[in-house]
Amino acid sequence: MSGGDLQLPRTLVAEAVAKALAEDLGLAGDITTEATVPHGARAAGVIGARKAGIVAGLELVEAAFTALDASATIEVSVPDGGHVAAGAPIAHVAGAARGLLTAERVAMNFLGHMSGIATLTRRYVDKVAGTRARIIDTRKTTPGLRAFEKLAVRAGGGLNHRFGLYDAILIKDNHIVAAGGVKPALERTRAHAGHMVKIEVEVTTLAELEEALALGPDAVLLDNMPLDMLTAAVAKVAGRALTEASGAVNLETVRDIAHTGVDLISVGALTHSAPLLDVGFDFEPTG
Amino acid sequence: MSGGDLQLPRTLVAEAVAKALAEDLGLAGDITTEATVPHGARAAGVIGARKAGIVAGLELVEAAFTALDASATIEVSVPDGGHVAAGAPIAHVAGAARGLLTAERVAMNFLGHMSGIATLTRRYVDKVAGTRARIIDTRKTTPGLRAFEKLAVRAGGGLNHRFGLYDAILIKDNHIVAAGGVKPALERTRAHAGHMVKIEVEVTTLAELEEALALGPDAVLLDNMPLDMLTAAVAKVAGRALTEASGAVNLETVRDIAHTGVDLISVGALTHSAPLLDVGFDFEPTG
Amino acid sequence: MSGGDLQLPRTLVAEAVAKALAEDLGLAGDITTEATVPHGARAAGVIGARKAGIVAGLELVEAAFTALDASATIEVSVPDGGHVAAGAPIAHVAGAARGLLTAERVAMNFLGHMSGIATLTRRYVDKVAGTRARIIDTRKTTPGLRAFEKLAVRAGGGLNHRFGLYDAILIKDNHIVAAGGVKPALERTRAHAGHMVKIEVEVTTLAELEEALALGPDAVLLDNMPLDMLTAAVAKVAGRALTEASGAVNLETVRDIAHTGVDLISVGALTHSAPLLDVGFDFEPTG
Amino acid sequence: MSGGDLQLPRTLVAEAVAKALAEDLGLAGDITTEATVPHGARAAGVIGARKAGIVAGLELVEAAFTALDASATIEVSVPDGGHVAAGAPIAHVAGAARGLLTAERVAMNFLGHMSGIATLTRRYVDKVAGTRARIIDTRKTTPGLRAFEKLAVRAGGGLNHRFGLYDAILIKDNHIVAAGGVKPALERTRAHAGHMVKIEVEVTTLAELEEALALGPDAVLLDNMPLDMLTAAVAKVAGRALTEASGAVNLETVRDIAHTGVDLISVGALTHSAPLLDVGFDFEPTG
Amino acid sequence: MSGGDLQLPRTLVAEAVAKALAEDLGLAGDITTEATVPHGARAAGVIGARKAGIVAGLELVEAAFTALDASATIEVSVPDGGHVAAGAPIAHVAGAARGLLTAERVAMNFLGHMSGIATLTRRYVDKVAGTRARIIDTRKTTPGLRAFEKLAVRAGGGLNHRFGLYDAILIKDNHIVAAGGVKPALERTRAHAGHMVKIEVEVTTLAELEEALALGPDAVLLDNMPLDMLTAAVAKVAGRALTEASGAVNLETVRDIAHTGVDLISVGALTHSAPLLDVGFDFEPTG
Amino acid sequence: MSGGDLQLPRTLVAEAVAKALAEDLGLAGDITTEATVPHGARAAGVIGARKAGIVAGLELVEAAFTALDASATIEVSVPDGGHVAAGAPIAHVAGAARGLLTAERVAMNFLGHMSGIATLTRRYVDKVAGTRARIIDTRKTTPGLRAFEKLAVRAGGGLNHRFGLYDAILIKDNHIVAAGGVKPALERTRAHAGHMVKIEVEVTTLAELEEALALGPDAVLLDNMPLDMLTAAVAKVAGRALTEASGAVNLETVRDIAHTGVDLISVGALTHSAPLLDVGFDFEPTG
Repeated sequence: MSGGDLQLPRTLVAEAVAKALAEDLGLAGDITTEATVPHGARAAGVIGARKAGIVAGLELVEAAFTALDASATIEVSVPDGGHVAAGAPIAHVAGAARGLLTAERVAMNFLGHMSGIATLTRRYVDKVAGTRARIIDTRKTTPGLRAFEKLAVRAGGGLNHRFGLYDAILIKDNHIVAAGGVKPALERTRAHAGHMVKIEVEVTTLAELEEALALGPDAVLLDNMPLDMLTAAVAKVAGRALTEASGAVNLETVRDIAHTGVDLISVGALTHSAPLLDVGFDFEPTG
Repeated sequence: MSGGDLQLPRTLVAEAVAKALAEDLGLAGDITTEATVPHGARAAGVIGARKAGIVAGLELVEAAFTALDASATIEVSVPDGGHVAAGAPIAHVAGAARGLLTAERVAMNFLGHMSGIATLTRRYVDKVAGTRARIIDTRKTTPGLRAFEKLAVRAGGGLNHRFGLYDAILIKDNHIVAAGGVKPALERTRAHAGHMVKIEVEVTTLAELEEALALGPDAVLLDNMPLDMLTAAVAKVAGRALTEASGAVNLETVRDIAHTGVDLISVGALTHSAPLLDVGFDFEPTG
Repeated sequence: MSGGDLQLPRTLVAEAVAKALAEDLGLAGDITTEATVPHGARAAGVIGARKAGIVAGLELVEAAFTALDASATIEVSVPDGGHVAAGAPIAHVAGAARGLLTAERVAMNFLGHMSGIATLTRRYVDKVAGTRARIIDTRKTTPGLRAFEKLAVRAGGGLNHRFGLYDAILIKDNHIVAAGGVKPALERTRAHAGHMVKIEVEVTTLAELEEALALGPDAVLLDNMPLDMLTAAVAKVAGRALTEASGAVNLETVRDIAHTGVDLISVGALTHSAPLLDVGFDFEPTG
Repeated sequence: MSGGDLQLPRTLVAEAVAKALAEDLGLAGDITTEATVPHGARAAGVIGARKAGIVAGLELVEAAFTALDASATIEVSVPDGGHVAAGAPIAHVAGAARGLLTAERVAMNFLGHMSGIATLTRRYVDKVAGTRARIIDTRKTTPGLRAFEKLAVRAGGGLNHRFGLYDAILIKDNHIVAAGGVKPALERTRAHAGHMVKIEVEVTTLAELEEALALGPDAVLLDNMPLDMLTAAVAKVAGRALTEASGAVNLETVRDIAHTGVDLISVGALTHSAPLLDVGFDFEPTG
Repeated sequence: MSGGDLQLPRTLVAEAVAKALAEDLGLAGDITTEATVPHGARAAGVIGARKAGIVAGLELVEAAFTALDASATIEVSVPDGGHVAAGAPIAHVAGAARGLLTAERVAMNFLGHMSGIATLTRRYVDKVAGTRARIIDTRKTTPGLRAFEKLAVRAGGGLNHRFGLYDAILIKDNHIVAAGGVKPALERTRAHAGHMVKIEVEVTTLAELEEALALGPDAVLLDNMPLDMLTAAVAKVAGRALTEASGAVNLETVRDIAHTGVDLISVGALTHSAPLLDVGFDFEPTG
Repeated sequence: MSGGDLQLPRTLVAEAVAKALAEDLGLAGDITTEATVPHGARAAGVIGARKAGIVAGLELVEAAFTALDASATIEVSVPDGGHVAAGAPIAHVAGAARGLLTAERVAMNFLGHMSGIATLTRRYVDKVAGTRARIIDTRKTTPGLRAFEKLAVRAGGGLNHRFGLYDAILIKDNHIVAAGGVKPALERTRAHAGHMVKIEVEVTTLAELEEALALGPDAVLLDNMPLDMLTAAVAKVAGRALTEASGAVNLETVRDIAHTGVDLISVGALTHSAPLLDVGFDFEPTG
């Protein structure tokens, strides 16, 4: 985590950690630690995984500890994207005892949340191993944490769909209705969009797919199609656009979906329903 | 949701919604909607649940829609804390078509996340029905969303543990070690804490419990105790302090834990691992 | 307080009130009011003075109440700068009962603090009535509240010295030492300052005063001079610059200082040591 | 400018206007207006162009006036993107006299700056009329104003290149050197980029162009090429990628560049060197 | 003031100091210092007390000086909570001459304000020495400075009442009226409050006290009771709740109030009417 | 650029750079650099001018590079206010390759914009060399950048007019109309303004000038007067006030205006229409 090599824009990290610490500290601060831990005491601890998983979020962990104690140090055993076994250490941290205790929950909340996402993503990625399909995320993210959750998806081996409403065009049903059909919708988006913006259209039938393909979208979102319709759709596209499957994707269905030949499978659950990876921070005996 | 009757401090809601919208809109805004939806068009839609659950977060939903269109209106069918059946409507929304489409994802992300928490909380609360035990949350919340997640827990019928490090004292193992034992830890916290601050101590054995009780804490956290030890602990406390059980709590174990007679069962999963309640926003045909 | 006629920049008022409310509400909000006051109840109350004084800060009072209940109304009996008798009403407020109770302390803290400053200022102003001396404030203000405190000084009949380090030049002893004397200090400031910036120099002896006057400052700060030296200084200046007396000014000494003929008497205590004007907000019986 | 139809994300507009007003008002506010304009006075005025040009920025103008007087009204004669003749009105504004005067400079600074950009853009667009070339902007924008400047480019008839480092890939010389050549650079970007992100490569020779084309970029940036080389490059690309010319583009050279057949011509001067469109706000006599 | 041992959450300190510096520096900065003090000059100075008192706020002093010159150093002679004699040094500061001069007023404003509060608090604490009564503060704090003012109260030997509306319940008259009596008010608060939240009720008569005690509050606020009624109230409570006296408390009355046997005496004046402790910063001759 | 010697308030610089970086990085960051530049690579580069000009803004350049890589170093060849020849270096920068590439555009945008202003200012200043006239700026600045643009004017040899509405009084036509004439306008401003605030009045005829002079303003703004009227106005003023000429000032007319004997010539174009100084950042070959 040396200077100038950020995975994430630095301001995002600093702001998110500051906000989380402010949320936990309020005006009175950590009244338990101030009462019980002597001024000036030093401590060291280990961040460990209680279950196996994929690590993500260490940049935020470091930011949390150093926000309270600029001299705190962190030595990483399993970096972002790495697999940690149950009971194994992820990193060792040392610094002021008070600062470590006060920052602990914020650091673990970020790490557990992001590692949970990376871990679930990896499970999906592993399920489709050997197929052409790649696992991608959606905009169904936790408000305020999108950049971090999308980083976690990448740590788990997934790819990111668009980051927001601003960086790609995705025409959905409601847009098509409002525009008066696929053709006017696509024509209007082409006139409006910058030349560096890709365009994707959602279709739910093969007829809609055909209509869309005539206008050369970069990608087509095949929403909630049965497996045989997906297979037919991929054949119809024939490489003229990226194909993305969505809807009713879970760990049981994802491999069959991949076998239809789609390029991409989007999974909202990666970011909206991944359970926490259980991580903890334990002081090590000194002396 | 009339003026001056807020469940949540208004600034928190406004800031969270503004941040989430900024995250989704970037500098360029909703380029799909701007291209495809005519200027000035009006629309109406229904927010519905695709699965049954407990609703939470409607204040943020309203804030998201009105942030983009001050004239947008929302009529709530199932308020926060209410049960919505699968396929049933939660609220109807009307306003500028562009504004509704642009705010949709942010509104649904808040609603789905918070309703997911309320729904899981209710499942735990139902499991312990008829016992004295109440279900409470922890500080294992998603960074930046604690106030909303704790509101969702209340909507689900749970109670809130402390909101942060600042509003109650919870002495854990590391604090006891740093202070040199339960007795000095408790004595120091009493000297330090304001008179309106409650004090809880974590204990893991009956011996520790006895030592703690001698110093009159408001509550004791019985961490990771087997059921029979929990029962013995409750008997030993004999009403002198609130008893809180934590560790290895899940939907299978929670009722047995409640039967030990503890006052409170804390469940981190309520806020860190609740799956989204699947909600959606569908335009209604106009005409 | 009609639109567009602000005494204070609107953003300053909104930000200060939002910050104060956030400080008082935290994440959990007003838990007492939410528990005890029924949803939807309306109320009316009177803001009154428990001691006589000069009112200041009503713009912030209105902002506090309407921040929590946009429909709240305020009818002012004694406007900013007016004198209120002990026990007399300052304003009547009506709105949502919850909103009024929750905003009460923030509103009263602003009003009491600013009215305290206005009241003390008026006492100084009254003391020098009939002399040429005007009472002015200093930069010894409460951090974060300078704009409001300087408004309160004006409400009390005082005038404002510079608002900060940026809007006027005041050369003090340390600056003179650093520049190598009054002459180079003044020459350097003239070369550096914009043409719309006034220059004042602090002097402590008549010799220094003479040296300063040769360079044509707009004002001279006569610091900690005995009364006879002040009189001599005013004579020496002879209208070539504004004369400001500072140091050892209190309600007992200020009139004698004014009689030396100085133009201005600066009083740090106006903003750093004014006791609160005791104001309160009492609900009126409804029905 | 009806609700919910924003060209720009609302928070961006509100924040930019609030920041500009704060910059102009400081702590003391508009001391000239407060001294000279009576409390409660109403006024009306006309925003006019002193030279002919293309209008842009009216959303910010409205936001500035209504920020100080929520009741202020604006009637637009020439909307964003429209042509205004020298001396002709752009809009009429009415409201509190104090509010209008205080907001005037901020409103005019936004309007003049953005209309200047729109006006210069239109000149470039007119120059290449009848060719296939479209005029696009760059990231050489004024810090903090990118969203507004890119809106102004669109108002002038130009298109937007990427909005930042985050929404498209543009591989420049330094990147190629760092990656060890065009081939590894492109391969690495494909592995890293999301599937909705377009890729452009900068080339300065036909050899580099050929190397790049083999890897299928979405666009090629033909930097500082002489006209005949540009023509040859366009021929070599043969529609396999978008072609963008940059470097040494000005109003004298742009039409010849367009005649080489390139798809896009990027002009940094649109946003970094456009002179203000001279606009003013004049009170109209009342009565 | 070593890393990680903060008395105050670090973000609070950094934000308050940044805001205060911004307030004093505006856009043009310290135009006097820039004109008169040579670039690169170093200086050292002493922070001294002009009157005797209790020191509080050194963390903010250090933050102010280092905000302008990261290399500035501060050596503390009298730490927070210590007694400084009139004319004695509190700390020595060294750094860039410009930075020290520019930060001086902000640093002194924080130090003087907070030390004024600590000094007044100590006077109250000394008055009740030997009794069981402890001196506590209220929510009548200066808007935006509550955390710092409550720290100053602790530095003076006082204790803190609740920090805001969120961390404890205090049922006042208006709440009781709105709830329909003490009993329903207390019952509703118990149902609403988290298990870690203490409950206090305000009573003004012995009858009200009796009614309240039946419901087991953690504390009772005996408001504006005469001394004999206070004595009777303490007897009636008989240790079942904490007793807090408020109203008409001043340095003349406080000891008599303490002798009634109350546990706590709350004094709003500690934070709303404490005069500044007169502190100054004087450059030391170098050479 | 050593600590504590800032030309600009540090918070302004840090905030402006953070905002500009956030604008360019979004949530996803610099996806091109992350893909193509190896983790840990170091680099060095030179900032050079492609055309001759006056440098301004290096403080922001340094802040931009060090914001992304705290270890980045900058060695300045031509400081703010210095003249750089076409093709000559302004500064050398070294640091993490990724950080330098990511910060490059923000740094160059600030430097080019501010140096453009300094360069244009110098051209005006050179034009009036040998006359008494000084070149000053106006409030027609780019929203959000006033402090930086006014610093650039000083770097070019110009002086600053007032920084905002708050630090000086400038009575314009509309104010005079609203106040009912020059006399009441000036009298009211004197009563309202602090004693450290200068007052300037705009006049457009010699009759108005005479009326104004009778009330002793600090400066008179001679707006849009022909040259002979300007000469007459200067004679009439006869040193009793500063004389400022404005309107129709350009590089062709400015010297003739200066020859009328006015003290000040204000030029809005300095800040609203200065073309960028073309600067670039080129990596140097390593090894």
